[in-house]
Amino acid sequence: VSQPSLIALDWGTSNLRASLLDAAGAALDTRSAAAGVMAVPERRFAEALLSLCGDWLAAHPHCACIASGMVGSRQGWVEAPYLACPADLGALAAALRWTPERTLAIVPGVICRDAADVPDVMRGEETQILGAREAWPGRALAVLPGTHSKWVHVDDGRIAGFTTYMTGELYAVLLGHTILGRMAGAGADPDVAPGAAFARGVERGLGRGDLAHDIFGARTLSLTGELAAADVGDRLSGLLIGREIRAARAWATGVECDASRAWVIGNDALTARYGMAFAQAGITAEPAPAGAAARGLWAIARSAALIDATKG
Amino acid sequence: VSQPSLIALDWGTSNLRASLLDAAGAALDTRSAAAGVMAVPERRFAEALLSLCGDWLAAHPHCACIASGMVGSRQGWVEAPYLACPADLGALAAALRWTPERTLAIVPGVICRDAADVPDVMRGEETQILGAREAWPGRALAVLPGTHSKWVHVDDGRIAGFTTYMTGELYAVLLGHTILGRMAGAGADPDVAPGAAFARGVERGLGRGDLAHDIFGARTLSLTGELAAADVGDRLSGLLIGREIRAARAWATGVECDASRAWVIGNDALTARYGMAFAQAGITAEPAPAGAAARGLWAIARSAALIDATKG
Repeated sequence: VSQPSLIALDWGTSNLRASLLDAAGAALDTRSAAAGVMAVPERRFAEALLSLCGDWLAAHPHCACIASGMVGSRQGWVEAPYLACPADLGALAAALRWTPERTLAIVPGVICRDAADVPDVMRGEETQILGAREAWPGRALAVLPGTHSKWVHVDDGRIAGFTTYMTGELYAVLLGHTILGRMAGAGADPDVAPGAAFARGVERGLGRGDLAHDIFGARTLSLTGELAAADVGDRLSGLLIGREIRAARAWATGVECDASRAWVIGNDALTARYGMAFAQAGITAEPAPAGAAARGLWAIARSAALIDATKG
Repeated sequence: VSQPSLIALDWGTSNLRASLLDAAGAALDTRSAAAGVMAVPERRFAEALLSLCGDWLAAHPHCACIASGMVGSRQGWVEAPYLACPADLGALAAALRWTPERTLAIVPGVICRDAADVPDVMRGEETQILGAREAWPGRALAVLPGTHSKWVHVDDGRIAGFTTYMTGELYAVLLGHTILGRMAGAGADPDVAPGAAFARGVERGLGRGDLAHDIFGARTLSLTGELAAADVGDRLSGLLIGREIRAARAWATGVECDASRAWVIGNDALTARYGMAFAQAGITAEPAPAGAAARGLWAIARSAALIDATKG
């Protein structure tokens, strides 16, 4: 069982994270590089893969190689078209796309449509959810905080539907390129636990206000001396996360998904911020186990019969 | 009456607009320069004024000189502290601040607070409103579209309260610095009338959605080929303006201000966009007469007895 059986790649926009897994899905080794899809020049993805994992590929020629994330986008190595919701393990495994040389199998993203027929997409998160969901009950609300936060309705192992909020990207551009950033200086240090300004931002965000108005309030509070320049980032972060929780809770209720408990995938400082905001919103946040992407890739590869337990 | 009696300056962040007015407030001459507060090096405001209006100042030494806008901010020539709402002509006139050499009288901005005690501010708009309001009934809802759009409750000539939306600044940073901009290219040409994508954005914005989610929808619609790259800017503009109208209408109703009719100050392409969105929202938009800033400065100067009709 402890023989290498799969090379699993979490290949996103900025980073490439590789795991060498045994036949039970346990990680024998892990590596990463700043070789995300937008960082690989001239789409030389094969070179990027060899550079990080060439020795694994050479030493374990029987190991399949599988990837999820933006590597399957139109800008990636090979486009793996979006699979419609509801999507489950078997459907994702059946829709794998191979690179021309069959070096790599790529997991498709998932697409859904809202009541107004506006599409929403994910790419990479579907794999994390499948990797994390063993810890959950049959029906669950999963949350993946980030640049484009996802809230996912998981029903009996299927991705039933989801909704995206550009929370992280909004935070970055508001602090980086607006009058708020000029007042805030460098903004909140993501590795420092947020203080009272964050909690007050969350409180405001959870209320009935409007984002385009409330972000201006962070400026005026600073102007009148009621908010320290160093706290503008925290208030803004709280406002955006509170607003996301308010909107996503309404969405979940609308699709008959229990929004009193959320399974949170991620284990960084941002996830900790969401945990504080969930507590304020009266939502029980359950941390998903670490290593969700690699476990999801392993489950998909096994479902697609890419793992040959007789070799190795 | 046609003798010069006032030099009126609309001195904002980016531009300085000057009018030479007669004793009835009619413009004898107008000039402008890209000499806004952020464009004047080392706060050399006196030099900027002389550069644009030196000949007027020399030829008409009896004329008072008055300014509104960011020139009265902390970063401006002299800080003219915010006046609390409700604020009327007399209060603004009584709160003028003079530059040390008494070259220039500066109109204060106005501050108000919402139910949660979060402050909101304006600087320059108060003067435009006083200049435009003669065309209005006693109670009115005034709208000033822009980088920081203002909705103002005017009650019997007083600025009773207002609310700000960072709509224009959000549009600029979303197109300039996010994934939406990378898909949209240059974005909408502000001088081209918006098309169906704008109207659909307004419709969505007027609905119950969430901004951080709906802006992601502009990306996914483009990804699936349902929205042309050239239309991403229009959809985004429609979303933001529709959202602003929805939130501001709720605000106006909350302060018992009739939101079925709006007096719109401005006469550029952006104002035309708002006009289309107002029509979709079922709000009657009334264009305010042009030259509101100069007329407001004249009314304040007259109230402060800065216009001496016996000279000239």
